Amino acid sequence: MKLATLSDGSPDGRLVIVARDHSHFVQAVAARTLQEALERWTEVEPLLQRAYDELNAGSAPGANPFVASEMAAPLPRAWQWLDGSAYESHGDLMQKVFDMDPIPRDRPLMYQGVSDTFYGGTDDVPFPNETDGIDFEGEFGVIVDEVPMGISADDAMKHIRLIVQINDWSLRKIAPVEMKTGFGWVQAKPPCSVAPVAVTPDELGDAWRDGRPALPLNVAWNGKKFGSPDGYAMGFGFHELIAHAAHSRRLVAGTVIGSGTVSNTNFREVGSSCIAERRGIELLDTGAASTPFMRFGDTVRMEASLADGSPLFGVIEQRVVRG
Amino acid sequence: MKLATLSDGSPDGRLVIVARDHSHFVQAVAARTLQEALERWTEVEPLLQRAYDELNAGSAPGANPFVASEMAAPLPRAWQWLDGSAYESHGDLMQKVFDMDPIPRDRPLMYQGVSDTFYGGTDDVPFPNETDGIDFEGEFGVIVDEVPMGISADDAMKHIRLIVQINDWSLRKIAPVEMKTGFGWVQAKPPCSVAPVAVTPDELGDAWRDGRPALPLNVAWNGKKFGSPDGYAMGFGFHELIAHAAHSRRLVAGTVIGSGTVSNTNFREVGSSCIAERRGIELLDTGAASTPFMRFGDTVRMEASLADGSPLFGVIEQRVVRG
Repeated sequence: MKLATLSDGSPDGRLVIVARDHSHFVQAVAARTLQEALERWTEVEPLLQRAYDELNAGSAPGANPFVASEMAAPLPRAWQWLDGSAYESHGDLMQKVFDMDPIPRDRPLMYQGVSDTFYGGTDDVPFPNETDGIDFEGEFGVIVDEVPMGISADDAMKHIRLIVQINDWSLRKIAPVEMKTGFGWVQAKPPCSVAPVAVTPDELGDAWRDGRPALPLNVAWNGKKFGSPDGYAMGFGFHELIAHAAHSRRLVAGTVIGSGTVSNTNFREVGSSCIAERRGIELLDTGAASTPFMRFGDTVRMEASLADGSPLFGVIEQRVVRG
Repeated sequence: MKLATLSDGSPDGRLVIVARDHSHFVQAVAARTLQEALERWTEVEPLLQRAYDELNAGSAPGANPFVASEMAAPLPRAWQWLDGSAYESHGDLMQKVFDMDPIPRDRPLMYQGVSDTFYGGTDDVPFPNETDGIDFEGEFGVIVDEVPMGISADDAMKHIRLIVQINDWSLRKIAPVEMKTGFGWVQAKPPCSVAPVAVTPDELGDAWRDGRPALPLNVAWNGKKFGSPDGYAMGFGFHELIAHAAHSRRLVAGTVIGSGTVSNTNFREVGSSCIAERRGIELLDTGAASTPFMRFGDTVRMEASLADGSPLFGVIEQRVVRG
């Protein structure tokens, strides 16, 4: 099943059901917003599924053409956003670049980020200046219904209701300064962007394995291919990230959990999903990072399609602007 | 003006106006919830103020006796909770205890914590186990209306709409492990508790100075006095914390900003507002920390009154329980 949120001027938008081929959508009847659907998922899911089946069968009255730019993020705001850093090759590179001590790998890495705003996939994204080191970070994420405190990783898997594709905007000149305090990131992590379509795990078919999305994330910067690392290489699966997050808190319905920047050990072949990683490779190879960060007016595009080329999350394609 | 939120079974509760002497309350007419009031503050505030004046004059029909245990946190959930660490004597002690490198003091310290749940001041507070090192942290906090990205500290002062008193629960065995990753705290920082009454800055009178609450925070553990450090000693005022937070994001209405654990340099005389600090002093003095962390069934009480003894935020008085 594929869901999206139509921008309608309200803070949470209007839940819609999107056809598998992204040709059309219909407004959901079973719930007004995705947040509401997640809070009553067991009751609402079969009703949404039936409407999805009708839409795919071409028998849904009131279907409209799907236009990505009319969509907000699937959750335009959420009560909680916890972002992991599950791709170890990314962590290894960043440690070298920032001259940090190695971080133990026996438990997931995770920080809490701003969740009162998620930009839509085609929204312009405002930043205060260019000198902070504007960077994109291509990620996958999951959205859960309510998860009790102390859940096991096995049980956490059952709470993964939707999978999404995220651009976790980062300000690289501030990131190491904040990281060295041990307090995590505030200024370095403005709101994220999310591709328009949130999908249930079954939509990934065989590409959803071990709580990991086995899909290449294709990233282009100013129209030029930047990387296509595969999502499967997570050191911890999403179910393990959820269990980690829920050690001492329940997760409310609509909590979003991120994978961290998608990265593969063969980054020299597949490229990267953030500029910082390319700069790290340059630093290792030549002693200096030569690729600059983003400038106002730059665009980034991110898309993860199924192996047969059919669309999955839709596309993040957006421009950075002066805030 | 004094506001509180009556527990009514709904996630955001019901906004009420509390008499200055905490004898009575009336339900607000101008807004249903505190979140709604903060989103329309300029319009709503004069109406709430008029009802507050009537209540204090004894001319409010429908006034009910104020019972703290019937109240939720002023915001039972919020879109954003950013906690500072503005008391340098606390930071100095913690660095020694955790054997951390000194953290530069040229910019505020801040992390983003869980905001989908704030416990009421008399709620039992559940934890998964005692071995994580359960600790209280007495703090002050402010609640803002919408703050634009890039605001100056001077302008930020005008967005401080309410002041609150917070218990920032902390799990001390996990805190240094998470801190050393640089990602900040997730497991070590479960939801906070908030005293029932949120007050406008004018209620503090002369005790609101330089964006700081000049009030002793009286803390007792299991009925025994633990400390009463003064709130004025913040290295950065709340207006500076807000400006720091808003460097690369707007702050939505209802964002809560915390001071960090209240602490004074003369901690040996005034005591502490968290156990970790007392343990740090013991470690410095004797080479070993002897005070244990909290056990299930323990209680903590926190209150900050005005100099003449009149009530201000009401009381946090709660019990830790097995979750």
